[in-house]
Amino acid sequence: MTHVLITGAAGMIGRKLTTRISVDGAIGKSAIDALTLVDVVASPDVTGFAGRVASSTADLASPGVAARLIAARPDVIFHLAGVVSAEAELDFDKGYDVNLDGTRALLEAIRAVGEGYRPRLVFASSIAVFGAPFPQAIADDFHLTPLTSYGTQKAICELLIADYARREFLDAVALRLPSIVVRPGLPNRAASGFFSGIIREPLAGMEALLPVDEDVLHWHASPRAAVGFLVHAATLEREALGTRVALTMPGVCCTVGEQIAALRRVAGDAVAARIRRAHDPLVERIVAGWPRRFDPRRALALGFGVEANFDDIIRVHIDDELNGVIAR
Amino acid sequence: MTHVLITGAAGMIGRKLTTRISVDGAIGKSAIDALTLVDVVASPDVTGFAGRVASSTADLASPGVAARLIAARPDVIFHLAGVVSAEAELDFDKGYDVNLDGTRALLEAIRAVGEGYRPRLVFASSIAVFGAPFPQAIADDFHLTPLTSYGTQKAICELLIADYARREFLDAVALRLPSIVVRPGLPNRAASGFFSGIIREPLAGMEALLPVDEDVLHWHASPRAAVGFLVHAATLEREALGTRVALTMPGVCCTVGEQIAALRRVAGDAVAARIRRAHDPLVERIVAGWPRRFDPRRALALGFGVEANFDDIIRVHIDDELNGVIAR
Repeated sequence: MTHVLITGAAGMIGRKLTTRISVDGAIGKSAIDALTLVDVVASPDVTGFAGRVASSTADLASPGVAARLIAARPDVIFHLAGVVSAEAELDFDKGYDVNLDGTRALLEAIRAVGEGYRPRLVFASSIAVFGAPFPQAIADDFHLTPLTSYGTQKAICELLIADYARREFLDAVALRLPSIVVRPGLPNRAASGFFSGIIREPLAGMEALLPVDEDVLHWHASPRAAVGFLVHAATLEREALGTRVALTMPGVCCTVGEQIAALRRVAGDAVAARIRRAHDPLVERIVAGWPRRFDPRRALALGFGVEANFDDIIRVHIDDELNGVIAR
Repeated sequence: MTHVLITGAAGMIGRKLTTRISVDGAIGKSAIDALTLVDVVASPDVTGFAGRVASSTADLASPGVAARLIAARPDVIFHLAGVVSAEAELDFDKGYDVNLDGTRALLEAIRAVGEGYRPRLVFASSIAVFGAPFPQAIADDFHLTPLTSYGTQKAICELLIADYARREFLDAVALRLPSIVVRPGLPNRAASGFFSGIIREPLAGMEALLPVDEDVLHWHASPRAAVGFLVHAATLEREALGTRVALTMPGVCCTVGEQIAALRRVAGDAVAARIRRAHDPLVERIVAGWPRRFDPRRALALGFGVEANFDDIIRVHIDDELNGVIAR
């Protein structure tokens, strides 16, 4: 029986992961008997799950919080809690407090248990650990060159987690997630938010602002695919990973122009016409330093899968969020 | 006029750097008017230097220490303080406290000054940020894959420093120093200590233990070359570095067997015969994960220089430490 802890459970991916594993009732072949959710805001109610559920509203970086969560010795920990890129760039202290010190508090709480306790930690890292200039396609052994504080914090956490895993305090997988599109709900403060906005708003009958040029190339996966990455990571054999526990996840590589063309194919001209150009220098500057295309060989060899093209990413949004209904 | 702060000033490189810059009286074209030395043990006396000297015995990671040192707004900071590799591996908490938290305290103290204060920080990183498996020669864009806690701490500091530099809180250069040989004095707790021991002890008429096989290949520079790297780094133009502030330093690549052959050439058979084989599994395991050969193009293009071969490294030791006298 498996006890699962999810940090950042109230976030977009946290909610979808919670729903997925509570419906599945298992991680791989292991049944889940307990689910602990934590976030700085209230986590969602869990329905249709037979096991125990505990939710708490707390900040991992606050004294004692991580120790309290780890005292129950969860077997699988999905560590998703974090401040997004634009916020970490605007608020230097908050970014380091939450993204670095929060993670370190969690790792230290795990180490402090001792007695052979060695949970599986699945960490949501980001392709923002890489910064320009880039090769044509970024291989698994490209160096860490973040150009944002957010990317720096994620890269540092990858290194910490690898060291804690090497010391056998835990088993770990760090997933460098693509930009997740289409994010449902309201825009958040991530600089990458427009990648979702230009699909989500038009499909809902609203105008969307495009702050960058159409030739901006980027690396995407759907929320459904991201949840699939996390669940798959929890089931990987320790030996399959070795000491290099950070993996770039597969994604769909396309330009903003190709995203818009896909929207036109899937939803029609009238929907695609709802995108309005409005350059934003801050977003342009941040995005210019971001990676574009990867060669995620290790992740593919380890069985991680993603959508075949951007049309499919749009269809996942229409299925999962809009009940199949487009505002034409 | 330049105020220089050296952390870890009582260490081997710290002492040699202190001597070098106090004799030079300048860093590049800028005269030094003040020198501040700090270490957890007493720093050496400075002789023959006309400017002000302040020494303190303190731990950078202790509250208030970094702020007090930075209050005088040093223009150039050589940050050498740290726990060595074997000690960081054996004492997990101490390694992170000193090597990570001490550095972070220094960076935060610099940031807290504000008012346009932007010192040049030269950080002593290490080739231990890289871990096996390796390519034939490690290029400047090889990824950070430390296999020790020490290497992890150095890699994290490189990332932090790059982010603080990008945010313009300081100017920074992080130097990935080769294994420094021949270290004078008593053996320290670094796993790399034998690389010096097998030269230093025989030259002094004593037996030395060799804990690894003779085919172990490694990357070396003399203490004199290391001090040269640090001083040169303090004079680099900010624009020459860009956002990638960590540089692998040039070194002499040779096997332990080639080291011994060089010792035989420079000092004779009787000296080289003082090396005794005594395998040490801990040292063998640590060293097996270390990098061997680099392609340090960026550093060479930026004017960093090193000895031409291992014979020269041995001669530096005989000149600088033994007044030219070998115990035959």
